[in-house]
Amino acid sequence: MAGAEWESLEQCLEKNLPLADLREVKRILYGKETRELHLPSGAFEAASKGDFELRGYGFEAAEEQQRRPRIVRVGLVQNRTPLPTDTPVVKQVTALHRRIEAITEVAATCGVNIICFQEAWTMPFAFCTRERLPWTEFAESAEDGPTIRFCQELARKHDMVVVSPILERDAEHGDVLWNTAVVISNSGAVLGKTRKNHIPRVGDFNESTYYMEGNLGHPVFQTQFGRIAVNICYGRHHPLNWLMYSINGAEIIFNPSATVGALSESLWPIEARNAAIANHCFTCAINRVGEERFPNEFTSGDGKKAHRDFGYFYGSSYVAAPDGSRTPGLSRNRDGLLVTELDLNLCRQVNDIWGFKMTGRYKMYARELTEAVKPNYSPNIMKE
Amino acid sequence: MAGAEWESLEQCLEKNLPLADLREVKRILYGKETRELHLPSGAFEAASKGDFELRGYGFEAAEEQQRRPRIVRVGLVQNRTPLPTDTPVVKQVTALHRRIEAITEVAATCGVNIICFQEAWTMPFAFCTRERLPWTEFAESAEDGPTIRFCQELARKHDMVVVSPILERDAEHGDVLWNTAVVISNSGAVLGKTRKNHIPRVGDFNESTYYMEGNLGHPVFQTQFGRIAVNICYGRHHPLNWLMYSINGAEIIFNPSATVGALSESLWPIEARNAAIANHCFTCAINRVGEERFPNEFTSGDGKKAHRDFGYFYGSSYVAAPDGSRTPGLSRNRDGLLVTELDLNLCRQVNDIWGFKMTGRYKMYARELTEAVKPNYSPNIMKE
Repeated sequence: MAGAEWESLEQCLEKNLPLADLREVKRILYGKETRELHLPSGAFEAASKGDFELRGYGFEAAEEQQRRPRIVRVGLVQNRTPLPTDTPVVKQVTALHRRIEAITEVAATCGVNIICFQEAWTMPFAFCTRERLPWTEFAESAEDGPTIRFCQELARKHDMVVVSPILERDAEHGDVLWNTAVVISNSGAVLGKTRKNHIPRVGDFNESTYYMEGNLGHPVFQTQFGRIAVNICYGRHHPLNWLMYSINGAEIIFNPSATVGALSESLWPIEARNAAIANHCFTCAINRVGEERFPNEFTSGDGKKAHRDFGYFYGSSYVAAPDGSRTPGLSRNRDGLLVTELDLNLCRQVNDIWGFKMTGRYKMYARELTEAVKPNYSPNIMKE
Repeated sequence: MAGAEWESLEQCLEKNLPLADLREVKRILYGKETRELHLPSGAFEAASKGDFELRGYGFEAAEEQQRRPRIVRVGLVQNRTPLPTDTPVVKQVTALHRRIEAITEVAATCGVNIICFQEAWTMPFAFCTRERLPWTEFAESAEDGPTIRFCQELARKHDMVVVSPILERDAEHGDVLWNTAVVISNSGAVLGKTRKNHIPRVGDFNESTYYMEGNLGHPVFQTQFGRIAVNICYGRHHPLNWLMYSINGAEIIFNPSATVGALSESLWPIEARNAAIANHCFTCAINRVGEERFPNEFTSGDGKKAHRDFGYFYGSSYVAAPDGSRTPGLSRNRDGLLVTELDLNLCRQVNDIWGFKMTGRYKMYARELTEAVKPNYSPNIMKE
């Protein structure tokens, strides 16, 4: 597995390949080239001072006669947890609020309309420990918890839609926890919430110790800047999850995640991008960065000795477009803000070319799936 | 768009990257390294003499106590149509039979157990012309047409399962045409057929001029070497198509295709590989190579002038494994045979780690899809 020091695939290719080859390699790997976005120099200075990476890219769409361009800027934030995991809970949360506040400030100067933070962004990804305290103390209300109030202020101040993935405590329904993303309108109002639909039971990621599969279906949020949805982390492995958000009308699907190198790094460039292609929409893949060490040791179900660290979150956040093109990734090892300008008209334009919805035969699949889940289902197998 | 002369992504990376970087790049792009397969030197000589590329790779699985390794060698064949498209039909078919016979001969010496040819392999991909004659004369019976009889001989002679994608004429049901793959057991018996489930209406690929969406569902074929299915060409864009083959038990899904560079080359490495990941199975992506020119000019619905050529089929056939790793691709411009050794035990091993079937919530999706296809369906959209 690559160490933290290896910065990014893109940087390596740019450095080593002759220009003509680089063009071909990028065409095959990334599709149609995304243009670099002009961002204010003050933003780069602030990013440099704040020690985070800032990148900007833009996707183009064709001009139409009946619709104006529907230009939206999305901001993807990836970051490490700044304080050790044994710092008091409130201090950790506050430090993360301050960090995100600073990055969002820069996003605002870059004209970002919709910003999305990483999965469970107010806490270390402590679910590997299977201990309850203090981790469950990071949970808060998705309606009026301190993080939601904090995000409402950000939204109002910057006229920005905020997607805030948190650990939710649902006091009105038996005090259970959920892995939730709250969507806050640029007006500051809570537009609604959506919950992680698929919960992993993989190595350090048996999160069902803490929360179960979401019960809110596949809501899509109509914002002033377009229709968005949130497919949280492990849901990216499930093509049907992306599909249902798309069927409900999502033009941008965010995928806030927390995933480590040894487990998933070679899957990372594939899955969100495939979803953008298959569903004629934009997808935004966000992963945290850095290593997190925990006070007590834990085992990982992999035959290895008990340990305190969780592997390396490899960042590499990116945006993929419905035409299969994608931005380069943010780095593997630094906090970062990826600003991407989308013309949402591209979704329908690609839909009208490729027609996956028209040719999708969903009625047949609804029928086949309905049969297939029956306990006495007999698979269609032909034998000699 | 890249010309035909640019051979392959892998070749370019191998040539230009320092070794340590190359290792990291390959890890991120291709996952766990596939080992090179030792193939007989006579096979390479025959391939060189026959002017086609020969490559061999192997995927590993862990040892188990209760099951022996289930080692299978699959052969993927990509080729150009050797004769001009205005040659008499029988001559074109015969030339393709001879070409495939020679490549299959080499596959046999490499120990291939299951071989799959490209989509509609007995003909040029003439559907762009929208003319009926002579192209419909390439259609034949999937039960006892000359190509099926030819494949039965190959199967018996080499003790090999043969997957033969053809243009089918269904004389018993109104003489209609289908885009079909026939699966022939290594005994020589026709095990059954499967039809292209999703038909494109994209630029030069409005194949619904000739045949409609398949009516055979998602059959899986139990062969002596494992359970296989065939997702023909455009079906690779539809995640539900892969899923249903997998739910019916497929361990290897072949994707015989015909697709050109300007349209799809940046999607090609993504889709079949994503399907291998999402469904815990092996997928085999096969594309033809070369340019095909037609006697009469045709337009492509792209605002460009009438022309006689069809763009460049870019080959690049590859195999992806359930753990997300993949082989390098065959070249973009040469006929080729890709021999890949699989241990089918890897499917269940990855399933037991990642658990996408267990966590897939298919019952919820069956219900949601059933609702979503109703004409009066109201999408789940939350507004302020």
